Amino acid sequence: MRKVAVIGAGMIRFGELLDKGIKEMLQEVYLNVNKSVDNGIDPSDIQAAWFGEYYETDGMPAGVLADSIGLLDIPITRVENACATGNEAVRNAFFAVSGGFYDVVLVVGAEKMRDSSTGATLWKMPTKTRDIAWDFPVGIPGPGNFALHVRRHMHEFGTTREQMALVAVKNHKNGMKEPHAQFHFEVTVEEVLKAPMVVYPFGLLDCCPQTDGAAALILCSEDKVDRFTKRPVWIAGVGNGLDYVMHAHKNFLPSFPATVKAAKTAYKMAGIEPEDIDVAEIHDCFTGTEIINYEDLGFCDRGQGGKFIERGESTISGRIPCNPSGGLKCKGHPIGATGVAQCCEIYWQLRGDANNQVDGALYGLAHNIGGPTAISCVTILRRSK
Amino acid sequence: MRKVAVIGAGMIRFGELLDKGIKEMLQEVYLNVNKSVDNGIDPSDIQAAWFGEYYETDGMPAGVLADSIGLLDIPITRVENACATGNEAVRNAFFAVSGGFYDVVLVVGAEKMRDSSTGATLWKMPTKTRDIAWDFPVGIPGPGNFALHVRRHMHEFGTTREQMALVAVKNHKNGMKEPHAQFHFEVTVEEVLKAPMVVYPFGLLDCCPQTDGAAALILCSEDKVDRFTKRPVWIAGVGNGLDYVMHAHKNFLPSFPATVKAAKTAYKMAGIEPEDIDVAEIHDCFTGTEIINYEDLGFCDRGQGGKFIERGESTISGRIPCNPSGGLKCKGHPIGATGVAQCCEIYWQLRGDANNQVDGALYGLAHNIGGPTAISCVTILRRSK
Repeated sequence: MRKVAVIGAGMIRFGELLDKGIKEMLQEVYLNVNKSVDNGIDPSDIQAAWFGEYYETDGMPAGVLADSIGLLDIPITRVENACATGNEAVRNAFFAVSGGFYDVVLVVGAEKMRDSSTGATLWKMPTKTRDIAWDFPVGIPGPGNFALHVRRHMHEFGTTREQMALVAVKNHKNGMKEPHAQFHFEVTVEEVLKAPMVVYPFGLLDCCPQTDGAAALILCSEDKVDRFTKRPVWIAGVGNGLDYVMHAHKNFLPSFPATVKAAKTAYKMAGIEPEDIDVAEIHDCFTGTEIINYEDLGFCDRGQGGKFIERGESTISGRIPCNPSGGLKCKGHPIGATGVAQCCEIYWQLRGDANNQVDGALYGLAHNIGGPTAISCVTILRRSK
Repeated sequence: MRKVAVIGAGMIRFGELLDKGIKEMLQEVYLNVNKSVDNGIDPSDIQAAWFGEYYETDGMPAGVLADSIGLLDIPITRVENACATGNEAVRNAFFAVSGGFYDVVLVVGAEKMRDSSTGATLWKMPTKTRDIAWDFPVGIPGPGNFALHVRRHMHEFGTTREQMALVAVKNHKNGMKEPHAQFHFEVTVEEVLKAPMVVYPFGLLDCCPQTDGAAALILCSEDKVDRFTKRPVWIAGVGNGLDYVMHAHKNFLPSFPATVKAAKTAYKMAGIEPEDIDVAEIHDCFTGTEIINYEDLGFCDRGQGGKFIERGESTISGRIPCNPSGGLKCKGHPIGATGVAQCCEIYWQLRGDANNQVDGALYGLAHNIGGPTAISCVTILRRSK
């Protein structure tokens, strides 16, 4: 095993990008990630790529990426794991570089969710992300799926809609400084509580948007890093965890066991504990999800997530700042891109280059929870000491 | 990097499995692969899995696999690369084991193509496997896509429909002995030539069927192999190659450059030349595709593929027996399972356990070419000397 560094990170602005197809988005993000490498990089330096895309927007994902950015002479693998697709792509690329098969690889995540060539997007989202033979027909698409968990969390631990609203307030505030964010407006607790109900306990402002977006990283083996940068950020740990697909099988709803498993693996690989995390980008597809994440990731005890946000422990100046980029809630959630974009933000944070900078962060964590809360991927990055 | 062995291989019978859902198929293949391990294996030995599935038949692939076979405490990654999905899953699992991250992992490929919970199959196949913004609207789904290449091969090199028919004759003959094959009937050159035309030069009997099926492998690091078997088969090389997605960009149609790139990488990793291959399972989605494969894989010179089959060099007793299992043409083509099943056959061949045994084979090769002829993955296996 070799150490693997992130040496470049690039994004495009997330949003409803009706003026861009997925190919233009891929080209733009590829230019941005290449430009981000301190000492420059040539396309010929890139030896392989992993592509996280969920919707096959323009057809065959690996081929569309290769064609769009002109990288036809390297292997490209598409990985998919529902909303954890982005961090899963990072994980598989990491294995191949650490294992010694490649020195410099590209990780791209991209998604076109607001429009697509086939109009396939609308029906694909709910069907691909859960069990369509059992769960979907009984009415458990995305929001209802997560609502079951959060409603039970409220019941068990007295978590309130006001506490959830604080997540939206925090993440929208953070997103104001993030140029890549889909939304640039703040919200108040009152506005969140008064927003039209989507599925209890989630009002419209408790839900992240569906977003077009792309993000990319360049990973490099330890022995080649010096050529590209003096300020690499290291991949300290990766994890992937699963849970039952069907909600009928889940026996403790106020948690996402997939997150617990993924995080445990990543912490162990990094040789650290949750309290060592200095900044985190965590999967706030719904406000209540972020509260459960605090607990599953070990940032606070079980049942204390509501108090954690109430005490401001996840704000920029708090104990473990969460979603300084604005998170999915404000920056947006282009599925395949989301986890990759989280790693971009953590990379910038650990280099001191972030828009909402957390001072002196050493370890940062990126986290996805997705599908029928059945899959989580976690990536832990570490600054060069 | 550590050496990685295949220590188990299992399949289910391929076919139109209207009596089984994808979950039953996954359960059956998992039992079969576990039973195949010489000294036995316990589910707790398996540390991670890679799943090649193309259609998301019952929804979220990794979750459906975990749920179906009860492996909820290990990471599962879904990879997809059009018709190369199976060998791509093997390749990514290989990286993680060789890199030292896991000792024992499961690779599963499965596909339900004859029916699905959503009926999504029919329209998904042509859209996901090519560029739907450009190629698909001008009428280039699967058969027409490959026909463009084969028609040009006929024009350039005088390849004939009779030579292509010989591929069907050989593979159907081989498939007679293969209990997992979808078809158990032989065909004659005359029957192939007289079959209804699908798209010139492919008649119905030049085309592989669409198939339900599943296949699985267990991979193991070199230091743990002895516990499971005295007859491991080693992964000697893996490769992934791409080509332009759009046919308008392809400048030499009588070849699949993706195959040439994937094979070059795999041969180099294995430290061998094409002539070292003793048995091969190659992607005969159409008879003419197999002829081009002979050339792209280096089994014969460019333009000599027709003569290669005419001289019987790819028959069981020939110089490089190709598709002893019956190939896609006769055994069937359940997309995600196909490459994994090819590796099962090569594993059995190299252990001397195959139904159509090639004597004394040392090296075997598995090959997929897919999408708009834009992606190829190749796996080379080697017998323990």
